[in-house]
Amino acid sequence: MSDEDQNKVIDGRAVAKKVEAEVKAGVEELKSEKGITPGLATILVGDDPASKMYVRLKHKACDRVGIYAEDHPLPESTTQEELLDLIKTLNAREDIHGILLQLPLPGQLNEQEAMNAIDPAKDADGFHPFNMGQLLIGIEELVPCTPKGVIRALEEYNIDIQGKHAVIVGHSNVVGKPMAAMLVNRNATVSVCHVFTEDTSKFTKEADILVVATGVKHLIKEDMVKEGAVIFDVGISEENGKVYGDVDFENVIKKAALVTPVPGGVGPMTISILMQHVLMAAQKTA
Amino acid sequence: MSDEDQNKVIDGRAVAKKVEAEVKAGVEELKSEKGITPGLATILVGDDPASKMYVRLKHKACDRVGIYAEDHPLPESTTQEELLDLIKTLNAREDIHGILLQLPLPGQLNEQEAMNAIDPAKDADGFHPFNMGQLLIGIEELVPCTPKGVIRALEEYNIDIQGKHAVIVGHSNVVGKPMAAMLVNRNATVSVCHVFTEDTSKFTKEADILVVATGVKHLIKEDMVKEGAVIFDVGISEENGKVYGDVDFENVIKKAALVTPVPGGVGPMTISILMQHVLMAAQKTA
Repeated sequence: MSDEDQNKVIDGRAVAKKVEAEVKAGVEELKSEKGITPGLATILVGDDPASKMYVRLKHKACDRVGIYAEDHPLPESTTQEELLDLIKTLNAREDIHGILLQLPLPGQLNEQEAMNAIDPAKDADGFHPFNMGQLLIGIEELVPCTPKGVIRALEEYNIDIQGKHAVIVGHSNVVGKPMAAMLVNRNATVSVCHVFTEDTSKFTKEADILVVATGVKHLIKEDMVKEGAVIFDVGISEENGKVYGDVDFENVIKKAALVTPVPGGVGPMTISILMQHVLMAAQKTA
Repeated sequence: MSDEDQNKVIDGRAVAKKVEAEVKAGVEELKSEKGITPGLATILVGDDPASKMYVRLKHKACDRVGIYAEDHPLPESTTQEELLDLIKTLNAREDIHGILLQLPLPGQLNEQEAMNAIDPAKDADGFHPFNMGQLLIGIEELVPCTPKGVIRALEEYNIDIQGKHAVIVGHSNVVGKPMAAMLVNRNATVSVCHVFTEDTSKFTKEADILVVATGVKHLIKEDMVKEGAVIFDVGISEENGKVYGDVDFENVIKKAALVTPVPGGVGPMTISILMQHVLMAAQKTA
């Protein structure tokens, strides 16, 4: 990669570090001034290796910023009632300010019911319908972490949002839909594309800000992006032990103004926002 | 208007009549089978003539479909506590299944707090954050009535949504944002434009389905729409005692496949959906 292109890489790890430093300072202040240590409880059902890794990464981040973290590993055979009982217990605990239910859950469990059972005030992931609804109407408190990380990166890199054409590829509940809501809240003109879109490239070519979250390896090629676009690659897929983003990074970067790499882009930012949420939730109880 | 153009008018009153007939049948069934009469309580604070008229129209609709309706007029000087007390009382009443807080409220009152106080299960208008969040993640139960009316009209006129480019002009919490969510949920490619959009006509010209909700008289001209577009005019503005939509209806209709008039378009559909919601809420308690 040329030096010039190197300067176009959005450094997700650096953004995350900055967020974590802020969280760490906030945690210390809350401890010293109110005697409150923010606490996160994670719930991991079953033995999925990827889920285990994600939970481990989140616990490590808690350690870095001074958040108390405990894991509740449940067996693959857990019943809905057992899961709901645990959530109820965690909802009631004063030392736990954030609850994170690692998804996906085994097939016998009702994900939506479980997520709805989490106290919205402790909903570290921001997936509870109450928090999603607040987001839709412009009240952003606990909101999905990945799109919020994207917003933070836009701010860090001084990218204007208002009046810009933001195009989102992918309409998941976790990324695409909340991302669209956040960008609309900031007065971007927002287009949402997905697998049913007739000609996605027609939209991506017009995007000032492009967020791609499909899980399709290198879906976005150089000829599909606008000169000077700011691009966030949220997708991740694995092939022969190597991870790929949704963006053909090596080529797209020649045309883009800024683009996130995979890995080292959106992933670290997401976890740092999760830390921020646990602190926010704890501050609200002070 | 030519006969040909006459056939392109979306008859909002006819759609509303059909919805109301279904609601009426549902109400009768609920009465005879479960002994439950659906009940709507409206809350009207102050003396705004337009608000009074809207409440009156809603009560009339209740009469037509057999829903019990009662109004709670409160003085302009009502305090937040008094309003919240009334909502609490209505939340607890078994004979009231839907609660409608007529907006806007006088300046001393906190609208959002009042809306959040309504039991989401009785939220006839679909504005509660919990219901908005359900909508965003694809669970449409009680949702904002105007966009739901638009969806119903699309169904009645057999307009495919999936894969179509739907453009929404206006990003209000009441129409634009929930409309976008509903269309994304149905796999349309959705673009949201608004007052900060640089070139709205670039988007509207590409719209298969166009929903306009800005309150700007005749914002959408013939040269801004695509041949064969299906157009919903949600806007309403008054000038010298005459009401106007956001669409220059007389001219736009020449190019459109279908378009709603103002009045007689989206308005009646909205009220019929409100009736549907009260029935749905009552059915859930059976």
